[in-house]
Amino acid sequence: MTEPSFSIPTIRLKPKSNARAIRHGAPWVYDNELVTDRRTKSLAPGSLARLEDAERNFLALVAVNPNSRIFARVLDHSETAEVDQDWFAARIVTALAHRETLFDAPFYRLIHAESDGLPGVVVDRFGDTCVVQPNAAWADVLIAPLAAALREVTGVSTVVMNGTGRARGLEGLEEKTEILSGKVEGPLPVPMNGATYMADLLGGQKTGLFYDQRPNHAFAQRLVAGKRVLDIFSHVGGFALASLAGGASSALSVDSSAPALDLAEQGAAAMGKSDTFSTRRGDAFDVLTALAEEGETFDVVICDPPAFAPNKSSLEKGLRAYERVARLAAPLVREGGYLGLCSCSHAADLDRFRGACNRGIGRGVGHLGRSAQLIHTGFAGADHPLMPQLAESGYLKALFYRIVA
Amino acid sequence: MTEPSFSIPTIRLKPKSNARAIRHGAPWVYDNELVTDRRTKSLAPGSLARLEDAERNFLALVAVNPNSRIFARVLDHSETAEVDQDWFAARIVTALAHRETLFDAPFYRLIHAESDGLPGVVVDRFGDTCVVQPNAAWADVLIAPLAAALREVTGVSTVVMNGTGRARGLEGLEEKTEILSGKVEGPLPVPMNGATYMADLLGGQKTGLFYDQRPNHAFAQRLVAGKRVLDIFSHVGGFALASLAGGASSALSVDSSAPALDLAEQGAAAMGKSDTFSTRRGDAFDVLTALAEEGETFDVVICDPPAFAPNKSSLEKGLRAYERVARLAAPLVREGGYLGLCSCSHAADLDRFRGACNRGIGRGVGHLGRSAQLIHTGFAGADHPLMPQLAESGYLKALFYRIVA
Repeated sequence: MTEPSFSIPTIRLKPKSNARAIRHGAPWVYDNELVTDRRTKSLAPGSLARLEDAERNFLALVAVNPNSRIFARVLDHSETAEVDQDWFAARIVTALAHRETLFDAPFYRLIHAESDGLPGVVVDRFGDTCVVQPNAAWADVLIAPLAAALREVTGVSTVVMNGTGRARGLEGLEEKTEILSGKVEGPLPVPMNGATYMADLLGGQKTGLFYDQRPNHAFAQRLVAGKRVLDIFSHVGGFALASLAGGASSALSVDSSAPALDLAEQGAAAMGKSDTFSTRRGDAFDVLTALAEEGETFDVVICDPPAFAPNKSSLEKGLRAYERVARLAAPLVREGGYLGLCSCSHAADLDRFRGACNRGIGRGVGHLGRSAQLIHTGFAGADHPLMPQLAESGYLKALFYRIVA
Repeated sequence: MTEPSFSIPTIRLKPKSNARAIRHGAPWVYDNELVTDRRTKSLAPGSLARLEDAERNFLALVAVNPNSRIFARVLDHSETAEVDQDWFAARIVTALAHRETLFDAPFYRLIHAESDGLPGVVVDRFGDTCVVQPNAAWADVLIAPLAAALREVTGVSTVVMNGTGRARGLEGLEEKTEILSGKVEGPLPVPMNGATYMADLLGGQKTGLFYDQRPNHAFAQRLVAGKRVLDIFSHVGGFALASLAGGASSALSVDSSAPALDLAEQGAAAMGKSDTFSTRRGDAFDVLTALAEEGETFDVVICDPPAFAPNKSSLEKGLRAYERVARLAAPLVREGGYLGLCSCSHAADLDRFRGACNRGIGRGVGHLGRSAQLIHTGFAGADHPLMPQLAESGYLKALFYRIVA
């Protein structure tokens, strides 16, 4: 499937590039760190290469993509490694052991890219199905041995390739989704935190369900027993269905997507909670404004918007959007209730996101004589490990506040 | 008990001080922000005063302490507030509602100082007993109505004043511990995360037990089923007993304090886990070194040291100590196992603490060809709320890593 490494091309760091970082585990080499000539620029996207330092010492086996700012991704520090099904299987075995420690049921993020040793590759597992997001060119090229290794190690029969999303665009990869093996028949019920979510593995956003919010859903469940819950940007019912599973007296999901709300309703039905679940389709900002005008209040309000600040250039605009969410949502929380505010923006770090939320809450309820306590800060679940040296890039943050007089 | 506010003295901000911050919820006024003269300097520590801006507009009712850099602490924004038992009771009612939402049993931090509206006051509840830490002068003065309000609102019969710790020194307050009402008979069993801890409410560190680690203990429990656990700086058995409750096959507590280890053993006995629990008394660094020399390894190693960097001047030294803990502990973790590293240092923020841990792990296991995934970042539990504008000061951080090949 792959050529043995001795026959593959070599690329080389510029004299002042940081070879030490690569030796210490840095996963990426940017195009401006490499000696690039016509030969390196013509390497096929996703092909393998030997990476050397300026003194021609071997550093790592890498996958290259001349179309990406991340020119090379480290696959292995062994010069004799062969990237075949066995190589994939070894990494998947290591990743699977961690998830089997964490979870009783086979529903989790199985591979979280670089930190699980498969750069740019995301795999979510839904029982007997794995959904692969090959967000780097090399994984597109080697999708066959990767899928075979997934079947071999996990025993799943169905493997779906989900080739959508922003990351593939940065790699110059086209959008394509296909079933590589097995079959997918309609939305799949996914148990999480005692709730049932319906995941559309072919038509949904990303891989059809976000596992990353699991611990934050679980935290919210501790606040909602007997309470009225509003879930803004609810997608397929994330916090709303978790709240019903946690004993909420009612939950209202707001989202702009009719298909997402339809899946949320199917989930509530599967849980036997249709009576206490409702949906409202619309722009979240509009609905927040309308609910205030209607005089509605809730015991718990949670907002889990899409990434308003996906990159540095959108940071300031994104922070203003987070502040606006907080400002509009806070007055809907009754005194003594709770407000959850989430961000999945890479560019908005914890301090900046919290600052935007604090400002928004202050502007939203300060004139009512109310203030807030910050009671919890959560991140993505433990099936989303981070490389320690890139840990500040942890994208998901969830802040829970209590609104007090 | 207190004078009505119209008869109390007035203190005034300097012309350029930030009155807006006080109006927006800032809890403290430093001595250099105030017009101080012989009269203000002679105010009795812990007495009440009216705080005005430079234009003589009322800002807040404050408690003053001319012996502290924090000269004034905001108690109330109402000019007519009277700080009596009812005033304390109202704040305790608000705080209690939050804890009763979070927990099934009455064992928690009930009052977490400024963010619960009682500046400098910490109250931990152990069933029928409340332990009060009055870490600001005003709470020393008003301990009687505070204790009465605690009894009134929570129904506890025993209230202990624990006047030890660094914070009182900064306020110029003497150390004293006394039983204000009720009685304390030997160590008290405290249920938490399915474990039983023995809390010595009169002789222990702080209030005899640290509730702040509860969510981090709970996270560790997800990693330990059937595993061998090492708990370094174990105090009364924090992570060790939680691990046994979580199904660990064995747990070893290391601490330099014989009384703490004795309480840990009593806890293990109360859990019926004495067979799988052991202790080793000694300096943590020495024991980590000795365990390595003995060739010992563990599935899970967790280190929860005292504050190595309690203030800015100790930051660099403290970070080196955290790095050393990580460097010595990481090699004791078997491949595929987990390493938990905690800090309760105010001065070491999350980025710096994580950097120290990352360096230590790299130095500890890099030469073995191992690296780490960061799988979880945790903070103090939700019964330790923060003022949003002071949230960066959240002191407790817990990082969990997985050690991989």
